[in-house]
Amino acid sequence: MTRIDDLPIRDELRGKTPYGAPQLDVPVRLNTNENPYPLPEPLVERIAERVREAARGLNRYPDRDAVELRTQLAAYLTRTTGHRIGLAGVWAANGSNEVIQQLLQTFGGPGRTALGFEPSYSMHALISRGTGTGWISGPRTADFTIDVEAAKDEIAAHRPDVVFICSPNNPTGTAVDAQTVLALHDAAQAAKPSLVVVDEAYGEFSHRPSLLALIEGRPNLVVSRTMSKAFGAAGLRLGYLAADPAVVDAVQLVRLPYHLSSVTQATALAALEHTDTLLGYVEQLKAERDRLVTELRAIGCEVTDSDANFVQFGRFEDAHAAWQGLLDRGVLVRDNGVPGWLRVTAGTPAENDAFLDAVRELMKENGK
Amino acid sequence: MTRIDDLPIRDELRGKTPYGAPQLDVPVRLNTNENPYPLPEPLVERIAERVREAARGLNRYPDRDAVELRTQLAAYLTRTTGHRIGLAGVWAANGSNEVIQQLLQTFGGPGRTALGFEPSYSMHALISRGTGTGWISGPRTADFTIDVEAAKDEIAAHRPDVVFICSPNNPTGTAVDAQTVLALHDAAQAAKPSLVVVDEAYGEFSHRPSLLALIEGRPNLVVSRTMSKAFGAAGLRLGYLAADPAVVDAVQLVRLPYHLSSVTQATALAALEHTDTLLGYVEQLKAERDRLVTELRAIGCEVTDSDANFVQFGRFEDAHAAWQGLLDRGVLVRDNGVPGWLRVTAGTPAENDAFLDAVRELMKENGK
Repeated sequence: MTRIDDLPIRDELRGKTPYGAPQLDVPVRLNTNENPYPLPEPLVERIAERVREAARGLNRYPDRDAVELRTQLAAYLTRTTGHRIGLAGVWAANGSNEVIQQLLQTFGGPGRTALGFEPSYSMHALISRGTGTGWISGPRTADFTIDVEAAKDEIAAHRPDVVFICSPNNPTGTAVDAQTVLALHDAAQAAKPSLVVVDEAYGEFSHRPSLLALIEGRPNLVVSRTMSKAFGAAGLRLGYLAADPAVVDAVQLVRLPYHLSSVTQATALAALEHTDTLLGYVEQLKAERDRLVTELRAIGCEVTDSDANFVQFGRFEDAHAAWQGLLDRGVLVRDNGVPGWLRVTAGTPAENDAFLDAVRELMKENGK
Repeated sequence: MTRIDDLPIRDELRGKTPYGAPQLDVPVRLNTNENPYPLPEPLVERIAERVREAARGLNRYPDRDAVELRTQLAAYLTRTTGHRIGLAGVWAANGSNEVIQQLLQTFGGPGRTALGFEPSYSMHALISRGTGTGWISGPRTADFTIDVEAAKDEIAAHRPDVVFICSPNNPTGTAVDAQTVLALHDAAQAAKPSLVVVDEAYGEFSHRPSLLALIEGRPNLVVSRTMSKAFGAAGLRLGYLAADPAVVDAVQLVRLPYHLSSVTQATALAALEHTDTLLGYVEQLKAERDRLVTELRAIGCEVTDSDANFVQFGRFEDAHAAWQGLLDRGVLVRDNGVPGWLRVTAGTPAENDAFLDAVRELMKENGK
């Protein structure tokens, strides 16, 4: 039998394993920050209707520029953030991972570097490596915020071509304020012209306003978003970005032609028609997220302040053992490899109750 | 206004324009090798049904490994080629472009090179560049076949890490026989361990059997396919590959997690249920392709033998002027930049008649 290492693969891939959380079949799955609420049935019907229409023309390539979808995404951003964005300032791809990959192919790549403040969304580093971009791990403080002076020093020392700022940050839930983003943006530009990517995958769950306002007058600042979380559509794989129209023009130099299928465009358009209902679920999830923070603290856990649809909690002497202890009780959370900490997604009230019960049992067992 | 060149993009992207055929609204569009037959209505309904089902679970991430879809693609290949392929030997992505990108990220990339025999599918070169892989343009003969000795010399001289063999070749329609592929494979392995990618995007339209048979015992040989053409589903963006299971394991090291959406998987599965109907259209298109070859030759054109759903015809002193002349008559064909030649997709009988009439007029106008 041939093994991977018998193949002429790139040296840096040897011995690696594919990225991805374990997909385990357990009663309560709170490990991948999915929205626990299925799409409402009228939206399901609308998706079937729009996809049926798209299927009638499926023998033709999709709209390569996804004009209708980008127009509606721009309208959504304008309405919910109060900042005017047009079609020309929005780009969409198969998940925000592909958006980030396209940005790194355009602004990163061989001979260039990207910097992120870790722990953060691990795909920033992985896609950097996948595109040949050198990765620089920038610092966070003990409470997982970004120390502006330390961050500026790091930027000045390394002069990265791309800087990632994840807000709210995954897996810690930490939001970054506009002042910090501006300071890092300015420090990055002072070091060398470079792209600053604000990853707002969880933006709709935040107490703070969107950082989209910062795009105006800053052509090297990009905000990325996704329909996976707030729109309850992780299965759709629709990510997008808002930026100066020049950035949208630039990523088209590297995007695979016709990258976004007709069925993806049709499904996303249907979901955007139901924005208000879906944002109603977001409000419920924010309340549940706040309840998780409060109750976990009452149980005796440390909890990182969260602006996302998940909560980082701890601290455990052995986080992996705690992860296993919860799994043994039918609750799957995420061990992101942050020593002492685990991450739980805000689920339905019943799922969250089951999770909290499991944590109480675990704490009792550990004599706390 | 900010322009692309004001941004800190990679130097090699400066001055480039996005890849893509002009999307013009004309009566007869025969420029992108689309299947002219819309999906049959029972299949459209089945797609709506399967997508409705998928939409009910859209808040969850898709099956990351697309097990059901890959199983059905394997069954399709086994049934139509007579060579036994299993789930473990099949991988799927958003169009064969993404399949090729994943292969190049795994087996090409910075410091490595890929070689193709040009003119050929231009995305091989473009995705090579997009992944930092050096591109080597290998030779074809005047009749667009591959001269085995010349090709072996080229491989020995350059020792590429990846070799592309497109069969039937786009844009010429030329099929490559198994003996040639084997000779090139062996020459490539003798030069250095390297990946040989046989692009069979138009495989179903060929008079020759699939080259899939060559995979057995050759872990460095991959066959890529697509549902865009034979399945009449260009809008779906579903490409796949068949290879040794080790290759499938290897591309999972670079694939973006959850790259293939639930709606894409559901739609592709529906189309696979209707394989026999769709392959019936393929037979009609093969007959029309053969008619185009015969009639174009009767008109006085030179035509390259074609095993695909398109035909390369010429020769024109000024191919671009001929392209414009046909467009002025309401027929859009493709100018792939091969001096003297144009490419026309086999459309419906009525579309092909309109195209042939336009060519006759053009030839008369040019005094031939």
